[in-house]
Amino acid sequence: MPATPVGPTDPMAVPRFAGLATFARLPQLDQVDGADVVVVGVPFDSGTTYRPGARFGPAHVRESSRLLRPYNPELEVGPFSSQQVADAGDIACNPFDIKEAVDQIEAGARLLARGGTRLVSVGGDHTIALPLLRVMAELHGPVAVLHFDAHLDTWDTYFGAPYTHGTPFRRASEEGLIDPRRSVHVGTRGPLYAASDLSETEELGYGVISCSAIDRLGPVGTAAAVRDRLGRGPVYVSVDIDVLDPAHAPGTGTPEAGGMTSRELFGLVRSLKGSEIVSADVVEVAPAYDHAQITGIAAAHITYELISLMALDNGRTNAEQR
Amino acid sequence: MPATPVGPTDPMAVPRFAGLATFARLPQLDQVDGADVVVVGVPFDSGTTYRPGARFGPAHVRESSRLLRPYNPELEVGPFSSQQVADAGDIACNPFDIKEAVDQIEAGARLLARGGTRLVSVGGDHTIALPLLRVMAELHGPVAVLHFDAHLDTWDTYFGAPYTHGTPFRRASEEGLIDPRRSVHVGTRGPLYAASDLSETEELGYGVISCSAIDRLGPVGTAAAVRDRLGRGPVYVSVDIDVLDPAHAPGTGTPEAGGMTSRELFGLVRSLKGSEIVSADVVEVAPAYDHAQITGIAAAHITYELISLMALDNGRTNAEQR
Amino acid sequence: MPATPVGPTDPMAVPRFAGLATFARLPQLDQVDGADVVVVGVPFDSGTTYRPGARFGPAHVRESSRLLRPYNPELEVGPFSSQQVADAGDIACNPFDIKEAVDQIEAGARLLARGGTRLVSVGGDHTIALPLLRVMAELHGPVAVLHFDAHLDTWDTYFGAPYTHGTPFRRASEEGLIDPRRSVHVGTRGPLYAASDLSETEELGYGVISCSAIDRLGPVGTAAAVRDRLGRGPVYVSVDIDVLDPAHAPGTGTPEAGGMTSRELFGLVRSLKGSEIVSADVVEVAPAYDHAQITGIAAAHITYELISLMALDNGRTNAEQR
Amino acid sequence: MPATPVGPTDPMAVPRFAGLATFARLPQLDQVDGADVVVVGVPFDSGTTYRPGARFGPAHVRESSRLLRPYNPELEVGPFSSQQVADAGDIACNPFDIKEAVDQIEAGARLLARGGTRLVSVGGDHTIALPLLRVMAELHGPVAVLHFDAHLDTWDTYFGAPYTHGTPFRRASEEGLIDPRRSVHVGTRGPLYAASDLSETEELGYGVISCSAIDRLGPVGTAAAVRDRLGRGPVYVSVDIDVLDPAHAPGTGTPEAGGMTSRELFGLVRSLKGSEIVSADVVEVAPAYDHAQITGIAAAHITYELISLMALDNGRTNAEQR
Amino acid sequence: MPATPVGPTDPMAVPRFAGLATFARLPQLDQVDGADVVVVGVPFDSGTTYRPGARFGPAHVRESSRLLRPYNPELEVGPFSSQQVADAGDIACNPFDIKEAVDQIEAGARLLARGGTRLVSVGGDHTIALPLLRVMAELHGPVAVLHFDAHLDTWDTYFGAPYTHGTPFRRASEEGLIDPRRSVHVGTRGPLYAASDLSETEELGYGVISCSAIDRLGPVGTAAAVRDRLGRGPVYVSVDIDVLDPAHAPGTGTPEAGGMTSRELFGLVRSLKGSEIVSADVVEVAPAYDHAQITGIAAAHITYELISLMALDNGRTNAEQR
Amino acid sequence: MPATPVGPTDPMAVPRFAGLATFARLPQLDQVDGADVVVVGVPFDSGTTYRPGARFGPAHVRESSRLLRPYNPELEVGPFSSQQVADAGDIACNPFDIKEAVDQIEAGARLLARGGTRLVSVGGDHTIALPLLRVMAELHGPVAVLHFDAHLDTWDTYFGAPYTHGTPFRRASEEGLIDPRRSVHVGTRGPLYAASDLSETEELGYGVISCSAIDRLGPVGTAAAVRDRLGRGPVYVSVDIDVLDPAHAPGTGTPEAGGMTSRELFGLVRSLKGSEIVSADVVEVAPAYDHAQITGIAAAHITYELISLMALDNGRTNAEQR
Repeated sequence: MPATPVGPTDPMAVPRFAGLATFARLPQLDQVDGADVVVVGVPFDSGTTYRPGARFGPAHVRESSRLLRPYNPELEVGPFSSQQVADAGDIACNPFDIKEAVDQIEAGARLLARGGTRLVSVGGDHTIALPLLRVMAELHGPVAVLHFDAHLDTWDTYFGAPYTHGTPFRRASEEGLIDPRRSVHVGTRGPLYAASDLSETEELGYGVISCSAIDRLGPVGTAAAVRDRLGRGPVYVSVDIDVLDPAHAPGTGTPEAGGMTSRELFGLVRSLKGSEIVSADVVEVAPAYDHAQITGIAAAHITYELISLMALDNGRTNAEQR
Repeated sequence: MPATPVGPTDPMAVPRFAGLATFARLPQLDQVDGADVVVVGVPFDSGTTYRPGARFGPAHVRESSRLLRPYNPELEVGPFSSQQVADAGDIACNPFDIKEAVDQIEAGARLLARGGTRLVSVGGDHTIALPLLRVMAELHGPVAVLHFDAHLDTWDTYFGAPYTHGTPFRRASEEGLIDPRRSVHVGTRGPLYAASDLSETEELGYGVISCSAIDRLGPVGTAAAVRDRLGRGPVYVSVDIDVLDPAHAPGTGTPEAGGMTSRELFGLVRSLKGSEIVSADVVEVAPAYDHAQITGIAAAHITYELISLMALDNGRTNAEQR
Repeated sequence: MPATPVGPTDPMAVPRFAGLATFARLPQLDQVDGADVVVVGVPFDSGTTYRPGARFGPAHVRESSRLLRPYNPELEVGPFSSQQVADAGDIACNPFDIKEAVDQIEAGARLLARGGTRLVSVGGDHTIALPLLRVMAELHGPVAVLHFDAHLDTWDTYFGAPYTHGTPFRRASEEGLIDPRRSVHVGTRGPLYAASDLSETEELGYGVISCSAIDRLGPVGTAAAVRDRLGRGPVYVSVDIDVLDPAHAPGTGTPEAGGMTSRELFGLVRSLKGSEIVSADVVEVAPAYDHAQITGIAAAHITYELISLMALDNGRTNAEQR
Repeated sequence: MPATPVGPTDPMAVPRFAGLATFARLPQLDQVDGADVVVVGVPFDSGTTYRPGARFGPAHVRESSRLLRPYNPELEVGPFSSQQVADAGDIACNPFDIKEAVDQIEAGARLLARGGTRLVSVGGDHTIALPLLRVMAELHGPVAVLHFDAHLDTWDTYFGAPYTHGTPFRRASEEGLIDPRRSVHVGTRGPLYAASDLSETEELGYGVISCSAIDRLGPVGTAAAVRDRLGRGPVYVSVDIDVLDPAHAPGTGTPEAGGMTSRELFGLVRSLKGSEIVSADVVEVAPAYDHAQITGIAAAHITYELISLMALDNGRTNAEQR
Repeated sequence: MPATPVGPTDPMAVPRFAGLATFARLPQLDQVDGADVVVVGVPFDSGTTYRPGARFGPAHVRESSRLLRPYNPELEVGPFSSQQVADAGDIACNPFDIKEAVDQIEAGARLLARGGTRLVSVGGDHTIALPLLRVMAELHGPVAVLHFDAHLDTWDTYFGAPYTHGTPFRRASEEGLIDPRRSVHVGTRGPLYAASDLSETEELGYGVISCSAIDRLGPVGTAAAVRDRLGRGPVYVSVDIDVLDPAHAPGTGTPEAGGMTSRELFGLVRSLKGSEIVSADVVEVAPAYDHAQITGIAAAHITYELISLMALDNGRTNAEQR
Repeated sequence: MPATPVGPTDPMAVPRFAGLATFARLPQLDQVDGADVVVVGVPFDSGTTYRPGARFGPAHVRESSRLLRPYNPELEVGPFSSQQVADAGDIACNPFDIKEAVDQIEAGARLLARGGTRLVSVGGDHTIALPLLRVMAELHGPVAVLHFDAHLDTWDTYFGAPYTHGTPFRRASEEGLIDPRRSVHVGTRGPLYAASDLSETEELGYGVISCSAIDRLGPVGTAAAVRDRLGRGPVYVSVDIDVLDPAHAPGTGTPEAGGMTSRELFGLVRSLKGSEIVSADVVEVAPAYDHAQITGIAAAHITYELISLMALDNGRTNAEQR
């Protein structure tokens, strides 16, 4: 990794609204000598059951990330100055064959993650979490999954399809990719198919902290409950943007009223300070339903917080290695 | 009532985005042998004083209800499996004569409510609450009104008109339709015409729990205050969607900043568990001002919670009758 | 067929904005004793290469058709009074498996077309034209295809997929479903992949009348050229709404500037008076990109003109049979 | 009338986006000593049968008129420099009682038209044309009506109401307000209720030049046909903005595809040069359905052309009086 | 000042949607004999670094203020009846020369503030706070600034420009316009350029209460912290609408996720009861990014709360003077 | 120049919605060995007099260009295969100092144009045409300007500023950059400041073909008139997107109703086949006012046609050189 990371384009020389849209105006991956963290788009939405359009998510989140500045005052870290972060572009995949696309995403992610690079994948629909978790488990063994979502995403099949945006976390559990004592859904709400949805997801290895539970626990209690569940060890964070209320994230495919505010979500994510975030995804941004980039900006910002956590952990890891 | 209720169209056979738009993909009333609960549209907005368009509310809420699944985990009930719920279509009424329309709504509601069927009426503007309350009082005697709204809706006349969306709860009180010790406005905020607006509404028989009061009481205290006021006996719930903040419900006719979140509203409604909800309305959804169905989804969801409460009460009633 | 067709809901009794949204407020198919013409939705968009969302097309066109009145002054016919027209709901199909979906559409259309009922299918993306043409060829032998579209839709495969919204008319030709001397694309424009796109489409049996050709020929010349090509015999009309300029149809998946106006399209379609329109489709309406129902209204109206032509032809056929 | 008219606010001193929104940044009526022409808003939409919202039309057209400059190069006249034009604000009327509102509009218009002031009324829905025509007939005797509209607006009643936006020109004929040899509808299209709609409107005294007729006649022929019909004598021009295609005017209440372009409409209106335009209205602008002021700008511009014609006629009249 | 203030147009005579758009339908300044408080627009946005468009803010906030009624129940005051409030129109300024515009704003504000009139200035971008503070300091000496904003706005220069929307509070401190012990930023969040941004702003004389601090302090603690900081003496309140979350204020130029709700902001502002608010601004409303006036309504309402505080203080001051 | 140009990303490998947004998915300039033509963004809008926001034009046009395919059937040329075309990114310039920005644009363009590279500059507001013309005149001597625009853009100053989006063609004439016998405005319409606007623009060296003139001349006559005026020699084409009607280009800063359709514009541009287009610009795309990329797609397409013309001319030039 380079001694001095190449950071975002200087806004004093090039206004924020100018220049090609890379995430946070960061360099493209082929413009730097490797990266500690890459932001990579996965423009795939053929696993969507309701409103499609998350295929345009990566482009939209990039455009919505132009305002991100280099210092995170809440986590007291410069996420782009203490580690090399780059935009790896998009993983291309087949929009007409889910199985092939899943394989392409897995192969693409594997290639990027070589040498310890952490990934923050920007979807695309939630189908993409499965191949990403395959790569994570390959590198780290079963990981804790911290899954922010209105939905459980542990359904079995839909129209006979095993891989859709409603099933990745069942598949991941079945494939042994997750640590079943340390994984948890946060922010769930809305009607289910049956009461057994909840018992089944727990059998698959996930705790559940619903929006009502968040109301009962309060922000501090919720953060403690999440940290307790995650324990120590590698954590994969998966953020379905529909964990936010439609007021905060209208641009998504299966919106549920009664959700989290972006402020709650940021606070909760920041409380992960000290965790070992090995990789992460931010999915289900469907720009056709967004307005004034509300959803895109929230998604870009949560991506920024995740990279900041990686910077802190990276620092810690480096320190330990010394 | 049928032994096994006919439920929503199976999403594993017909995708949620397919099929004619009935509420929650439920059967139409003429496709079942009677119903415990009907959702009925009342597309009337000629009583609107500012932004019109709630005449398109029923169609919009139906389209926004396609994602509702059959099990309510918060209230632990299947609202469509323990009682027959059906979509009764719309009550047609005269857009050019408010008086005649009010009579038509009353007649239409009376017909549907025969035999004990509970109504969840989807507006339309708030004018429609008056004829609905007339039918309720006819069936149950004066009812407690639990009124969620940014506004009091107890003004007297507007341009000489006695029946508008700003006056139904004054008329209802004058006509003896409400129980004046048990009725309450929740979520009020915004400027008034005069301080006397508040004293007058109290004289008419309504308590007032404003948004500032909610801030002071907190969610638990607010729920307790509401339950205390409602006491025991039949309750009619009237939800003006503008009780939500414009961020959560932009698609409405007289928006007021500083409102409730959908999560707060759902929590408060769920706290009515155990109440005898005899009927309800959800009004003032004006789709021309909505975006990405934010408002429609919130309205559909609150309708779902109200039907869930009826299912619980229905169960209780049935048990008592045994 | 019934002596007196059941027509749309009476707007003097039920305002146009009220009631469940069937096409043009027509009866549902199961409410009448058979139909001469059915409007059927095909909410499938998994063959889309760019902006998805046409799965919501049928619901949107239905909502946008509420203003259609019963008499067509240009064609001097009452399309709903001289034949029974009904809304057949949607053909459900698998969003995750194109091949299976194509088979489901074919089976669904075959069932509806039994006994001579003509179909006007509302998409969905253009993939659906293939199974619809299979049924047509089964009933009528190879048919002339009159294809309004910005694109040729005779590409071969895309990401290896043989059935997508860019390939139906190549497949149809290969399968012998079309009459190669009588079929024609109208309204094409925009960049191609290669000059051979044009020669290949002609080899497959399609004439091409591009938007520039329309400019040269003028409306009268264009109508004559279309009629010349179609000759006598059964005609299937396929209207991709992107044949209209994005100003007239923003709500579509692969918009091309420089297109037709809705007035031009209506005039051209009306000039088919006297043709034997055996069935038709109107596809690629993607509501997430529509505004104020501009696209939906244009699609509903072209559907109305197609049904009017069928009414005229139906009259002719009936007269001939006497 | 003042020797030197007070014109719009100087854009070199006050940018066009600044200042209170009067039409074309003209002075308010009470800021000048009388006016030759007033622009007056009539924010009434309770006669609307489909999408309401034209009550916000006057405010929207004013906001959309900020770019209008003082010289009309097509008609070679400065509409604000050769006559005093002022913004008379809005005529307030009862939104809950159509009959009373019609009377209020009539009284308000009569007051403004005293002393020969010409009115350009900005609606509001088309109901307002009736009271405006009453005042015109009072001043000028029966007038020729040049009516641009997708619809005939000569229906009889709707839900029993005699005064709605679908009936003003039948009422006007019945009341003897129009010259039945010189009146004409231009731009009609879309389905009717029955063939008799056309024969009845002709019996009421209106010619009909439909959009198809415009296609056949061409712009020059259409202009000639209009002028022939109008003949000599006072003309009242009534522009329903839905005469434009929804692409050009999405912001309206009963949109019909297949309409005129704004360029066609402007050309046709300018061809009235030399006619005696005694007053005019521009109605049915419903801003909730507009986008980027497309509709508002077209409405503001047609208003500008009408005022320009009045300036020419005013010049002529003045010259004749000398 | 007049004995009986002239209030807003009577909504029982003129519907709220009718009439020229002045703030809250108040009289224009030249229609009354002086004013205690004026609302004045400053349509200037040439200091914007990202999304421009706040030049249309004054017109938009006026249109969005039509629903404001005369009595504030939270503060128990009639803001328009106990003092004369008027709409002073807009201060015109040069969009092409920031320096000249700043001088024009200063001159315009000085003129309006003569004789003790308080100003609530509606922007426009935040650049305008500097000239407004110059006038305040001239009248009152250095004032406490209560600055609601997502950003610090104490950056130094941008592209060499000293006066932009990111710099007014650094300039104000440098020019000695603020009381450095009593000024405070509230609601800040989002990434910074460097950790030194925070230390520098404190050196300039501003406390910082970030959104995370608000989470920690709670509403009561935050209100106390603000009041402590402000102490006694004149306070200038500057509200950048982006202090609200994009869900509550999408229509702004540099949106940051994770912000305040409008309810929080109103509560905090109301807690200033008893403070001496000498003037205020509400800036950065960019209507092109707004939806259904969400942002405009929030801005109009906060303006109303500020005027209410002035009414209370005005009462107090008057009482003291007696 | 390379023997085989590097073309757009292969859509059979990478879907059109995937990958960083360069114009038409072309390579970035630093990824190829020089280019015959570059598309370069100029994100500057500080010269705007009404709706700002064209600073986001380059990003928007790039996103809207993803559907452009490699073969132009109307001009029978592959614009990306017969010459190397690349995306040169954006020229950064100072948003707070128009004079400095103009110099930066001039310098940036000069650098890119070295060695004969032709530029298609995507604005940005029309201010940018002046520095671009300076570079053109430097390279080619005074050029013919073919200026498509609703406006003349030959005003003198605005608020004292010599360089704004309303003045570039006056400045260009004064500076001797244009050939005054061969330059022409096409598509002008809308009110002017005075009749002298027209005479002055002619004195400056521009012919005028207004929209009314286009109506009179017809498309063939208009094309002939344009070609006559341009004669032989270098031509600079400047396309203000507001030459299109707001229906076709809502996303612009100073919209005028009554404009050209995109089909007319494309036809007219294609009629330039054989002209020597030395460079071009496409300006005034303001995405905040666009819908569903209508404007962006039209702008991307006209850019494509201009590049196609350059390919033809490039071929001709190369042939001549042999």
